[in-house]
Amino acid sequence: MPEKETFKVTPYEVKGRIDYDRLREQFGTQELTAELREELRTMAGGTLHPLIERGIYYSHRDLSALLREHRNGQRFFLYSGRGPSGPLHLSHLVPFELCQWIQEKFDVPMYIQITDDEKFWARPQLSREETVAWGRENLLDILAVGFDPKRTRVFFDSRSIAALYPLAIRVARRIPYSTVKAVFGFPPSANIGLVFYTALQTVPCFYPSWEAGRSVPCLIPCGIDQDPHFRVTRDIAESLGYPKPALLHSQMVPGLLGEGVMSTTGGAEENALFLNDPPKTVERKLRRAFTGGRSSVEEQRRLGATPEICSIWALWKTRFADTPEKFEQITRDCRSGALLCGDCKGELIERVHGFYRAHEAAREAWKGRAEELIVTAPPHPD
Amino acid sequence: MPEKETFKVTPYEVKGRIDYDRLREQFGTQELTAELREELRTMAGGTLHPLIERGIYYSHRDLSALLREHRNGQRFFLYSGRGPSGPLHLSHLVPFELCQWIQEKFDVPMYIQITDDEKFWARPQLSREETVAWGRENLLDILAVGFDPKRTRVFFDSRSIAALYPLAIRVARRIPYSTVKAVFGFPPSANIGLVFYTALQTVPCFYPSWEAGRSVPCLIPCGIDQDPHFRVTRDIAESLGYPKPALLHSQMVPGLLGEGVMSTTGGAEENALFLNDPPKTVERKLRRAFTGGRSSVEEQRRLGATPEICSIWALWKTRFADTPEKFEQITRDCRSGALLCGDCKGELIERVHGFYRAHEAAREAWKGRAEELIVTAPPHPD
Repeated sequence: MPEKETFKVTPYEVKGRIDYDRLREQFGTQELTAELREELRTMAGGTLHPLIERGIYYSHRDLSALLREHRNGQRFFLYSGRGPSGPLHLSHLVPFELCQWIQEKFDVPMYIQITDDEKFWARPQLSREETVAWGRENLLDILAVGFDPKRTRVFFDSRSIAALYPLAIRVARRIPYSTVKAVFGFPPSANIGLVFYTALQTVPCFYPSWEAGRSVPCLIPCGIDQDPHFRVTRDIAESLGYPKPALLHSQMVPGLLGEGVMSTTGGAEENALFLNDPPKTVERKLRRAFTGGRSSVEEQRRLGATPEICSIWALWKTRFADTPEKFEQITRDCRSGALLCGDCKGELIERVHGFYRAHEAAREAWKGRAEELIVTAPPHPD
Repeated sequence: MPEKETFKVTPYEVKGRIDYDRLREQFGTQELTAELREELRTMAGGTLHPLIERGIYYSHRDLSALLREHRNGQRFFLYSGRGPSGPLHLSHLVPFELCQWIQEKFDVPMYIQITDDEKFWARPQLSREETVAWGRENLLDILAVGFDPKRTRVFFDSRSIAALYPLAIRVARRIPYSTVKAVFGFPPSANIGLVFYTALQTVPCFYPSWEAGRSVPCLIPCGIDQDPHFRVTRDIAESLGYPKPALLHSQMVPGLLGEGVMSTTGGAEENALFLNDPPKTVERKLRRAFTGGRSSVEEQRRLGATPEICSIWALWKTRFADTPEKFEQITRDCRSGALLCGDCKGELIERVHGFYRAHEAAREAWKGRAEELIVTAPPHPD
């Protein structure tokens, strides 16, 4: 028998081939069951976002309790964030697309955190100017997903610090260094900014409660790699008088090169589709992407291909198959051998081009308006 | 031979009977020599502050270089601070009295930092409301020392964070956890606020340079227990393009009970004279204070007393002997037996009462005006 594959997932490192069920067990999170999905569908008025329907969101913490409270009138808010180290790629949109859908269906506020301080601390090669500039760019891409400007607020860490810091002071006293070391696996050479940072990532979970002067439940859709941050948050929430945030965890989108997740941290630009990639680059990257296809057309016609290992199929699965029928058709035809990789890629490329054009237009419309959403002062004196 | 006494001095702990010369060697600082004192006297127009004249300030880092630069037109600024955990006692005024004198004689700006975040992190029994309220109170006491409102600015950490944070982000990336652990001796249970804090204590050293866009030298008069913070600062200054701050270190004022320094961290209220002690309390504490006197009047008349171990003499030495002649007279008469402890205490009590009355009036005049000195926004965008 083969040895169990080893993998490592923290907010600062994703290594190896992830066994998502095993990861869920390791992290001690709950399964997003069919029953819970149906509950979400009912509450959302009969539809379900493809990211949930297709199992990309697959794990949670306390989602049932949050939905129950919501039905009882304790309305929740959404929170997710982005560490601005470069242009966004498609995988980065996954939490925000789900947030936007939930905002629309449940009519709830959304808080976006742009962690320009954290990324400066985590990436020695980045300058402050770069993290701030990428923060502005990334924010436009995030808002372009379709958030409601009237129900959306932004914590841009370095510019929102006056609003965040009063709560961060309280949070930080509750977190010993030993916890941070154990949870994130920091070496002694980790800088003190990074050590402190989890306090700031916790603040948005409590901010609306602080502002309202009563408990406001929080739901955080995020990649499961971010779970450790919020485990720390959940451990201290009640001691500060705030509700524990609920979480909805997604799997990570696979990289185009067929190994690991869509990330270019190791420097492999070809592994990800950036939102600012020009059409020719999109086409090149997708044409070269790893698939589940066979070594010859004849063999593929005869035996079919394997969608589960295919980076192209993974993209259809996220957002590019816009109906359940389309996603089923692609999957069926891939498996049967009716659909060849070249044709499948050609069709996807067209869809991605269309998506990029619509995204660019939405992004353009946010220019000059995004700044207004940034929170710069606390709701009341500390 | 007796064993060498052991003592421990960090910004968070002062233990044992301090051998100040040995401490200076341990810390690797320079002696404040007679030559350097004369240089200061000349530059100050022929006078010298009693705290320097009498050797309470006894150690420095790079003071000669700073004075040389100042003469060459590179004017310096002053920086000192206070962690607001309760009312100020007389010992807390030592850095600020020297700063005020230097501000006046050298016509330089002063930056005062009120570290309400740090004290909240360092003292689990303090609430945020308490550290903020003590911060406001302490600031009035500090300003009452006589600072020039036109040349003095205040960083009140939680309220100045928008101004401090952009630089703190840059500073924090340069400081590994291992440095903080080694310098301050934090255990793994130290909270992440305290671990981060030295970054914020560094910021005022660089702030005027950041604001001016050129190197502005910094002089920090402080208790020698604060030196470790600024050793960290000095180590990273040049890598960030800022000059290393110079330091002027004082010995700590001895406690009234004859053991250790004037501090009530251990809970001994009688060990310190608080600025808000009513006259009767001042009198009681001084009457009960430890002296260098003999066990009987007769013996004292015959053998004289020992000023060096006397907490009352230590107070005369700071500010209550207002002329060199007065200080010499007290010291001589104590040593000869001409002055008995009761009479000496009586005279000091009168002086302290007078000092408190003047201080209270000066403090009152700052009410409503102190807030205006607090820096709340950075000088320019980051």
